[in-house]
Amino acid sequence: MKDFFKVNSPEAVAALRTRFRRMAAESVPLAETRGRILAQDIAADIDLPAFTRATMDGFAVRAASTFGASEGNPAYLEVAGAVSMGEVPDFTVAAGQAARISTGGMLPEGADAVVMIEHTAAIDDTMIEVYRSVAPGGHVIHAGEDFSRGQPALPAGRRLRAQETGLLAAFGKTRVQVFKRPEVAIISTGDEVVPVTEVPDAGKIRDINSYTLAAMVQAAGGTPHTYGIVADSYEDLRERISRAFAKCDMLLISGGSSVGMRDFSIQALSSLPHCRILVHGISISPGKPTILAEAEGRALWGLPGHVTSAMVVFQVIVRPFIEHVAGLDRPAATRKLPARLSRNLASAQGRTDYVRVRLTEKDGVLWADPILGKSGLINTMVQADGIIAIDVNSEGLDQGAAVAVWPL
Amino acid sequence: MKDFFKVNSPEAVAALRTRFRRMAAESVPLAETRGRILAQDIAADIDLPAFTRATMDGFAVRAASTFGASEGNPAYLEVAGAVSMGEVPDFTVAAGQAARISTGGMLPEGADAVVMIEHTAAIDDTMIEVYRSVAPGGHVIHAGEDFSRGQPALPAGRRLRAQETGLLAAFGKTRVQVFKRPEVAIISTGDEVVPVTEVPDAGKIRDINSYTLAAMVQAAGGTPHTYGIVADSYEDLRERISRAFAKCDMLLISGGSSVGMRDFSIQALSSLPHCRILVHGISISPGKPTILAEAEGRALWGLPGHVTSAMVVFQVIVRPFIEHVAGLDRPAATRKLPARLSRNLASAQGRTDYVRVRLTEKDGVLWADPILGKSGLINTMVQADGIIAIDVNSEGLDQGAAVAVWPL
Repeated sequence: MKDFFKVNSPEAVAALRTRFRRMAAESVPLAETRGRILAQDIAADIDLPAFTRATMDGFAVRAASTFGASEGNPAYLEVAGAVSMGEVPDFTVAAGQAARISTGGMLPEGADAVVMIEHTAAIDDTMIEVYRSVAPGGHVIHAGEDFSRGQPALPAGRRLRAQETGLLAAFGKTRVQVFKRPEVAIISTGDEVVPVTEVPDAGKIRDINSYTLAAMVQAAGGTPHTYGIVADSYEDLRERISRAFAKCDMLLISGGSSVGMRDFSIQALSSLPHCRILVHGISISPGKPTILAEAEGRALWGLPGHVTSAMVVFQVIVRPFIEHVAGLDRPAATRKLPARLSRNLASAQGRTDYVRVRLTEKDGVLWADPILGKSGLINTMVQADGIIAIDVNSEGLDQGAAVAVWPL
Repeated sequence: MKDFFKVNSPEAVAALRTRFRRMAAESVPLAETRGRILAQDIAADIDLPAFTRATMDGFAVRAASTFGASEGNPAYLEVAGAVSMGEVPDFTVAAGQAARISTGGMLPEGADAVVMIEHTAAIDDTMIEVYRSVAPGGHVIHAGEDFSRGQPALPAGRRLRAQETGLLAAFGKTRVQVFKRPEVAIISTGDEVVPVTEVPDAGKIRDINSYTLAAMVQAAGGTPHTYGIVADSYEDLRERISRAFAKCDMLLISGGSSVGMRDFSIQALSSLPHCRILVHGISISPGKPTILAEAEGRALWGLPGHVTSAMVVFQVIVRPFIEHVAGLDRPAATRKLPARLSRNLASAQGRTDYVRVRLTEKDGVLWADPILGKSGLINTMVQADGIIAIDVNSEGLDQGAAVAVWPL
C-alpha cells in the first residue's frame, strides 16, 4: 500500500508527542545527576535549615536590645559568649546581651537577630557598642524557612541543575530516581553516502548526518547509537531498521531523498509489526518530506538527507519528542528567546519557514539577523546562533518584528 | 604575614584571567567532541561540496532553456537521462534537454540549474513541460560554494556544536585536537559541615557545596574532583590543599566563613610554593570575602561557605576563568541575555549587587523578575532562571530598565 503525501502542520505534529511512551526511571548517584530529569517528586523530609542560623558574621542579640541604637547613641551590650561553628550554644542571650557568631552559626536561645560586625565595636572582652538597630529576624534564616518538613520541593519532570542537586544534597539524597536517557538509533541512507573515514569518489559525500544528529541527540538528553549507512536498497534498509529498533527508544533515519528511497523508508517502516505512519510530510521549509511513524509506543522518524535540513527538523520538530520521552515537564525559560528581526524577511504562505539567524545584543535588545546564502550550506549553520519560524499565514516579517529564537 | 583585606572590583578580577595557563590539547574521536573546545585551526582541505549538487528533486537543465517558460507557455525539454545518486552522470545536458535528478545528485555536464519537479509535468518518457523559468545556479550548490579548498573554516577556541562536528565530518576529520578539560579540585571547609550521607547533629549542616560546585564545574566544561570536608584546622587544610593542588588545574575551597578559617585559608594558600594572593575581597554582594591566588599558572579560589553565595560567585566570577583555561575564545551569543526589569530594585552603592531573577516572555520581551526572599535561601536559587548585576555606582534600577541576564 502506498500512502499519499498527507501534509501536516508543525503544530499538529507537535501535539502527537504525548502518544509516545516515557522512559522508565533509574536510580543514579547524586554526583551524576547534572542535566538529568527527576523521575520522583521530592518533598522536604527535614526542616531546612534544621536550626536558626546567622547569615552574617557579627553578634547574636535580642533585636529589642538594639532598638534606637545609632552612631551618636550606641547600645551597650554585654558579651554572653561565642557560638562555635557546628555546636549548640550552651548559654542563652538575655536582654542587654550579645554573643559572637559567624555566618552559619546556630543562634543561641534568647537571640532573635544578628547585628553585623561592621555595625559594632568592642569596648573590651566583655562589652560591645552597637551602632545600628536590627529588626527581629535580621540576618538570620529561621529553622524551616528555606523548606519546612513535608513541603513539596522538586516535582518529577524537572531538569536538575546545580541548585537542584544542592537541594537534594541538603536533604541527604545520595541517590536519586531520574528518567533513563532515551537510546536513539541513527541510520544514514543513500547510495551517495560514504563513511567519514573514506575519501568520497566523484558524486559521493561523507556521512555528515550521523555525526550532527548524534551530537543533537546528546544535547537533547538522549544517548545516540549510530547504525551506519544503508545504500538505496529496500531489503538492507528493512533489516537495519529492525535491528536498530529492537534496541532503541527512538529511531532517526536520515536521507532517502531520492523518490525511490523515500518509498523504501515508508515501506520498511510500515513492515515493522504494529507500525503506523502518523505523518508523511509537514508544511515546513526546510523539512517538508519528514516522516513520523509509531510502533510499540516508540517514534521512528524519516528526516531529510541534506544535513542542514535534517538539523533544522531535528531542532524544531524532533527535539521536543525526545524531551517528552526523556520525562521533561518544564523546559528551561531560555529555551526560546524573544528577539527582534534586523531586517525585512519574505516568506512563502502555506508553510512555516525556519530561518537561521545570528544573534547580537544592542541597547538591551536581542536582534536576530537572518543569515543570507543558500540554505543548503553548512556554513550557514556554523554561523547561526539560532532559528526563527515565520508562520504559515505570514507573507513575511518586517524589520523590528518580534521573533522567538530557538538557540542552536 | 597577614594580608589586609584589599577589595577589588569584579572587572579588575575578571581581567586577571588571562594570567592563567591554558590547558594542553588532546586528540579525541570526532563522535566525542560535542561541547569540547577546538584547539587547532581548521581549514577546508577539500572543496565542499566536491561537485555541483542539486538541492531539490527535479530536472537538471541549462537555465537558458527555461527562460520565458510559464503555465500558459511552457518550455518543452527532451529528457537526456537520469542522474543516479552517488554516480557521475555519463551524459551531458544540451540546450533544450533535461535530466532527472534527486536532491544531492551531481549535475551533469552542460546543466547549470535545477527545475523543481513541482514546476514540471511529464508528457511522456522522453519529454517534459516546464512551467517556470529558473536562473543559472538555481537550486544547485556549486562545487566549493560551502567551503573552498584552503579556506579557513573553524578557528581554535570555538566550542563545538553539532554543526561544527558535522563540518569536521565533511572534511573527514575522524579525530580532532581539542583542549583538555580542566581538572577542578573542590574542598569544603567548616566545623559545621558533615558528609551528605550523615544525619547532621544540631548546629551542623550537610556538605551541599561539593555537589553544587561540582555540577557547575561540569556545566563550565571542567571535570570536578571532590576532596571532602576539612574542619577548621590549619594543618588539615594545608595538607588537603597540597594534595589536591598536586593533581588539579584549578582549586575551589568553599567555606571558612568563620574569621579563623578565613585566615587559615589565606595562610594555607600562602604556604604553597610560589603562591601569590592576587585578590582578597571583591566589591560584590554576595561574595565579598572571595579569595583568588595563583601558583604555577593555576588559580586557587576561596569561595563563600554559604551555598547560594558560592554559586553566585562561581557563575559570575569563577566560570570565565574556567572557560579561559579550557581554551574558549568565543563565548556563545546567548551567554548573557538582554532583558527588562519587571520592577524597581534598590541597591547599595560601592559594590556590584547580583540579584536572582525569574525570566518570563511577554509581547516579545524577556522580563527579569527579581526573586524576593532572603538571599541565603536555596529556594531562591531553585526558582531562579538567571542572575543580573546592579552596577557599583547605581543606587538601583527602575522598572523597565535594560539588564543582562546570566542564565543559571
